[in-house]
Amino acid sequence: MIVSLKQDADPTAVMGELARRGLWVSRVEHTAGGGPLHYVIAPHSAAVGADELARIDGISAVTVSRSSHPLVDRQGPSVAVGDARIEAGSWAGAGPRARGTGARGPAWMCGPCSIESEEHAREVAAGVASLGVTFLRGGAFKPRTSPYAFQGVGVDGLVWLRRAADANGLKVVTEALGEADVPAVAEHTDMIQVGSRNMHNYALLKVIGKAGKPVLLKRGMAATVEEWLLSGEYLLSSGAAGVVFCERGIRSFDETTRNLLDLGAVALLSHVLRLPVIVDPSHGVGRRDLIQPLARAALAAGAAGLMIETHEDPGRAMSDGPQALALAELGVIVRDLSGPRGGGS
Amino acid sequence: MIVSLKQDADPTAVMGELARRGLWVSRVEHTAGGGPLHYVIAPHSAAVGADELARIDGISAVTVSRSSHPLVDRQGPSVAVGDARIEAGSWAGAGPRARGTGARGPAWMCGPCSIESEEHAREVAAGVASLGVTFLRGGAFKPRTSPYAFQGVGVDGLVWLRRAADANGLKVVTEALGEADVPAVAEHTDMIQVGSRNMHNYALLKVIGKAGKPVLLKRGMAATVEEWLLSGEYLLSSGAAGVVFCERGIRSFDETTRNLLDLGAVALLSHVLRLPVIVDPSHGVGRRDLIQPLARAALAAGAAGLMIETHEDPGRAMSDGPQALALAELGVIVRDLSGPRGGGS
Amino acid sequence: MIVSLKQDADPTAVMGELARRGLWVSRVEHTAGGGPLHYVIAPHSAAVGADELARIDGISAVTVSRSSHPLVDRQGPSVAVGDARIEAGSWAGAGPRARGTGARGPAWMCGPCSIESEEHAREVAAGVASLGVTFLRGGAFKPRTSPYAFQGVGVDGLVWLRRAADANGLKVVTEALGEADVPAVAEHTDMIQVGSRNMHNYALLKVIGKAGKPVLLKRGMAATVEEWLLSGEYLLSSGAAGVVFCERGIRSFDETTRNLLDLGAVALLSHVLRLPVIVDPSHGVGRRDLIQPLARAALAAGAAGLMIETHEDPGRAMSDGPQALALAELGVIVRDLSGPRGGGS
Amino acid sequence: MIVSLKQDADPTAVMGELARRGLWVSRVEHTAGGGPLHYVIAPHSAAVGADELARIDGISAVTVSRSSHPLVDRQGPSVAVGDARIEAGSWAGAGPRARGTGARGPAWMCGPCSIESEEHAREVAAGVASLGVTFLRGGAFKPRTSPYAFQGVGVDGLVWLRRAADANGLKVVTEALGEADVPAVAEHTDMIQVGSRNMHNYALLKVIGKAGKPVLLKRGMAATVEEWLLSGEYLLSSGAAGVVFCERGIRSFDETTRNLLDLGAVALLSHVLRLPVIVDPSHGVGRRDLIQPLARAALAAGAAGLMIETHEDPGRAMSDGPQALALAELGVIVRDLSGPRGGGS
Repeated sequence: MIVSLKQDADPTAVMGELARRGLWVSRVEHTAGGGPLHYVIAPHSAAVGADELARIDGISAVTVSRSSHPLVDRQGPSVAVGDARIEAGSWAGAGPRARGTGARGPAWMCGPCSIESEEHAREVAAGVASLGVTFLRGGAFKPRTSPYAFQGVGVDGLVWLRRAADANGLKVVTEALGEADVPAVAEHTDMIQVGSRNMHNYALLKVIGKAGKPVLLKRGMAATVEEWLLSGEYLLSSGAAGVVFCERGIRSFDETTRNLLDLGAVALLSHVLRLPVIVDPSHGVGRRDLIQPLARAALAAGAAGLMIETHEDPGRAMSDGPQALALAELGVIVRDLSGPRGGGS
Repeated sequence: MIVSLKQDADPTAVMGELARRGLWVSRVEHTAGGGPLHYVIAPHSAAVGADELARIDGISAVTVSRSSHPLVDRQGPSVAVGDARIEAGSWAGAGPRARGTGARGPAWMCGPCSIESEEHAREVAAGVASLGVTFLRGGAFKPRTSPYAFQGVGVDGLVWLRRAADANGLKVVTEALGEADVPAVAEHTDMIQVGSRNMHNYALLKVIGKAGKPVLLKRGMAATVEEWLLSGEYLLSSGAAGVVFCERGIRSFDETTRNLLDLGAVALLSHVLRLPVIVDPSHGVGRRDLIQPLARAALAAGAAGLMIETHEDPGRAMSDGPQALALAELGVIVRDLSGPRGGGS
Repeated sequence: MIVSLKQDADPTAVMGELARRGLWVSRVEHTAGGGPLHYVIAPHSAAVGADELARIDGISAVTVSRSSHPLVDRQGPSVAVGDARIEAGSWAGAGPRARGTGARGPAWMCGPCSIESEEHAREVAAGVASLGVTFLRGGAFKPRTSPYAFQGVGVDGLVWLRRAADANGLKVVTEALGEADVPAVAEHTDMIQVGSRNMHNYALLKVIGKAGKPVLLKRGMAATVEEWLLSGEYLLSSGAAGVVFCERGIRSFDETTRNLLDLGAVALLSHVLRLPVIVDPSHGVGRRDLIQPLARAALAAGAAGLMIETHEDPGRAMSDGPQALALAELGVIVRDLSGPRGGGS
Repeated sequence: MIVSLKQDADPTAVMGELARRGLWVSRVEHTAGGGPLHYVIAPHSAAVGADELARIDGISAVTVSRSSHPLVDRQGPSVAVGDARIEAGSWAGAGPRARGTGARGPAWMCGPCSIESEEHAREVAAGVASLGVTFLRGGAFKPRTSPYAFQGVGVDGLVWLRRAADANGLKVVTEALGEADVPAVAEHTDMIQVGSRNMHNYALLKVIGKAGKPVLLKRGMAATVEEWLLSGEYLLSSGAAGVVFCERGIRSFDETTRNLLDLGAVALLSHVLRLPVIVDPSHGVGRRDLIQPLARAALAAGAAGLMIETHEDPGRAMSDGPQALALAELGVIVRDLSGPRGGGS
């Protein structure tokens, strides 16, 4: 956004009017031959309409750039996943949405990092369902940094997830790791997850979009918010039924948490861009002892829901056990966030 | 922390026991001549005592490194500032602490970026006091990136702050920018602030520590949590009466928020290290339209209080106007966070 | 690496011996019951063998972790691409390798960001060949941040590249963007490129590896060196004929260059790990006016070659024109780096 | 910089002309009521004058922002330190400047992290002088992350440095850590160093500037190039005789090097801004085994000189021993960079 001043404008007065509306001037530009001043507005300014600015005394013109993600902008704050609904909002004391009742509340997505066996899937599904969770998460295909690490059980895992979810009235959200996996994932899941490592994998985004399902799009480890939205645009322009964003921490220099959870971006997506955004505190900090306060903070910041790694025995998890919660631990958090002052409201 | 295994231990079983307690093994070390395995535990693991680990079957020894900040560790979660108290805690629906009543609640630190005149100080102080705020913040000495930007009004500002605070029953917290300013700042303020740009300025930390006051220590723009704690150790070992930490966002690559607010570090300091930490969402995101959700998220994550830039007219602020709230806007947030579900609980 | 001290060792003396060899002690670990000290060696230490350390007076044991990328470690500093060879080395004044003569020198990979037409491919190929360049680069499939940006001409481009290269005695290196493209890319190219956005795309790495070709593996925008090497391990363990690494700048907070070119990582790969690494200063800084000094610096740091975006008319380039060099500009650099003091030697 | 188009301009043609000159368009701005287009030029574009752009067909106006550091811009590429001179340039095969001969070449600044005793200072000074080094570096006041680490020997060290330098015809460069140290440092040194941790310490910059000496200004750990230049402006506007910049690596997420050496910034300062910039590979990577290639790369990128930590016995160094070179190792590098193809040219 550029604000152009009239020749006779009072620059201080205009600057004051901009500040009053929360706009930062990142650069003052002077026309070579002595023409009027132009103020370049910084991207971290409050969202204010061009019309409102154009009416300020001393301003001759306001220019704006066209959004590069019109479909994302048009989607709105709510995405349907079957008869469930994920929506941006202030979820206070609502706990997991009461399943089947149409009651509104944050979406809870719980389950293990990796699906390990059918029995395992069933056990976890029953456990999280008993807490009121709506979405069963779990990986059948796993993106592992090392080629020698456990890569997931594959298509079988999708079937186990589906059956376990159906038996407990849950929706399934699971990751499609490669283009070749997409048909099978699309067949067995309610919502397809794009992992952080694939947020910039445009070939995959196109294939997933074509499947026509709702998609959970994790933010890349060093992706800007704009790049994240553009990956959403890839999905929607390819046919995705809806895009829910998922913040899971970005890369940083500090080693006391596994990643750096960016709740400022969550507040931006939820409150300014009006988009649904799930927060994954498990990957966000990687520390089991911080998941409860950060889950509360996420909802307080405007998250549409939470993705929390859960395992009936984290000590036997085939991946990411240290950050997984036992079912009982998840229960404590669910109850905390569902209380009269819950939801970080 | 290093966990050493017995020669005949079952590595998978031990690894499981560690995962069960939230510990990540960052490296597996093999002794050259075929001796036992050693697991190096990653810093982003949950906090677990060495004794508990030593009792696990298959573990022969557990080693730990000594804390490099014993005085910080010993301080505890609560710091007194005159008859006020800043303490780590879960502040739900308590709103600003009822002044003079001894009631517990989050500390609110409000006021302008720069103090501009005595009248200005008085006006802001009366305004924030009427909302129940306890601490008046405001800069008399300003660290500005450009030598040609407004550098603050200097010692006069300290006097104005003091008088305005006293007239309204407020405490004063203000920054000492250089060693030479410390005596004057110490004379007029209740709590001395160390700015982000000076967190690594050890000469200043020593001089401030010697003043014997409680100190608000902002985190450096790219400081690790460990470096932040060590700067606290400089203050305490030089004589500071107490150290309250303040997270105000770190530097990042994304431009949609001014800085990246690290609420994971806040949760860590509050819930694991049991230290009082204030959150400054004004600098943290720089966007007036995101301060409310992030203030709520900060308290939900465990903040001991909030520092929020407030100005009776942000359009006339001599610095950082775009991120300052008008008094009426602050009032909305105070009421929101003081409600029955407030405080991000 | 952990260095364990004897009970009666002099810690200062041992620390001195470690420092003398360039080893940083990141943590000193104390055994709970009063046993011996352990020093955890930081990853940014000089590479020193465990055997040498074990002989130091006062050290009882040295432990090391097994490499997680044995195939990468075993590959060595030289990779053959047909009858060409890319190798780590100090390339001083050698200019582009004299083609067909077997003479040794840095590998030059030049050509446009996007291939636009057959005529365009021919023109560029003839131009770069006349300067002594060995590899023709150019994209037929383009990973673009926006779904509405030019996505490349597709398979036709591969054919044009191949014909243009053959007509001028050049090798072709081009990117495979998705799994479905791999067969066509493998058919027409001498070396398959993995782009930065796909470094963590393990499904693609496996498919590309299976094609059995040499691969140019660009570093991800926020990838650690270890993650980069592990992606190389994915390729080699899947069957790639060889992996050449390519540093193209990582994400940073500064906006005066497009990315942050990490020549420290280049020196590490070349001089310590003995791996071939190409440097792409075009993406590395994005500024045409800095490519010459950074190309020189790259060779001085140990690069095995250079990838430089070149277009016969950067003003007509369909992508990344601002960072492309015109052929005449490339010629200046080639001559500069081939002179008696060239090659940054 | 903003480029405004005429109403009837061909946007593609103008965009092409900009690309041809290395300019990136970061945003296209549309005037609300249908007026002309404006292109916002990205900061990572090549440096091109506004006049040249204004002559392009289809462009109606070009606006530029005024530099915020006019004194830095005016300084030029060369700074005198007594009868020595530090200057931006392409130093190929020149080795350390022949002292006393007026010969031109890169400035070498060598010596230990900490000065430990007078004998130590004498020994190092004689050693580095014998290699042709011009500047003796060494710390009397040390900024240490921990208050319990060795803090330097203080004023005595300044006297020892001065005597050792004088006895060997060397200049002294040493750090002033706090405002109170500045008079003593100014008295005994030829050039005052501002450390990375103090780049944003504006109170100190002002006091150092007033001393009227040439200053070596290290870049802050997360400072943008613009902030670095502005700190130089603080120094010059306070009276510094000249400012030489020093790149020593910025903070990053990778742990295989101690910091991330930003040679792109070095090339920018040297070749575009025409400012003298020293490179410190010792702190830049922290690895003794990478200093030689990075020293070569630094000169190739345009460094005006090198700062290399040197100790007669790194095993006895009181700080940063692991990254210090022994004198013999320094000798190898000096000879390498002074050869017929030296200097990384």
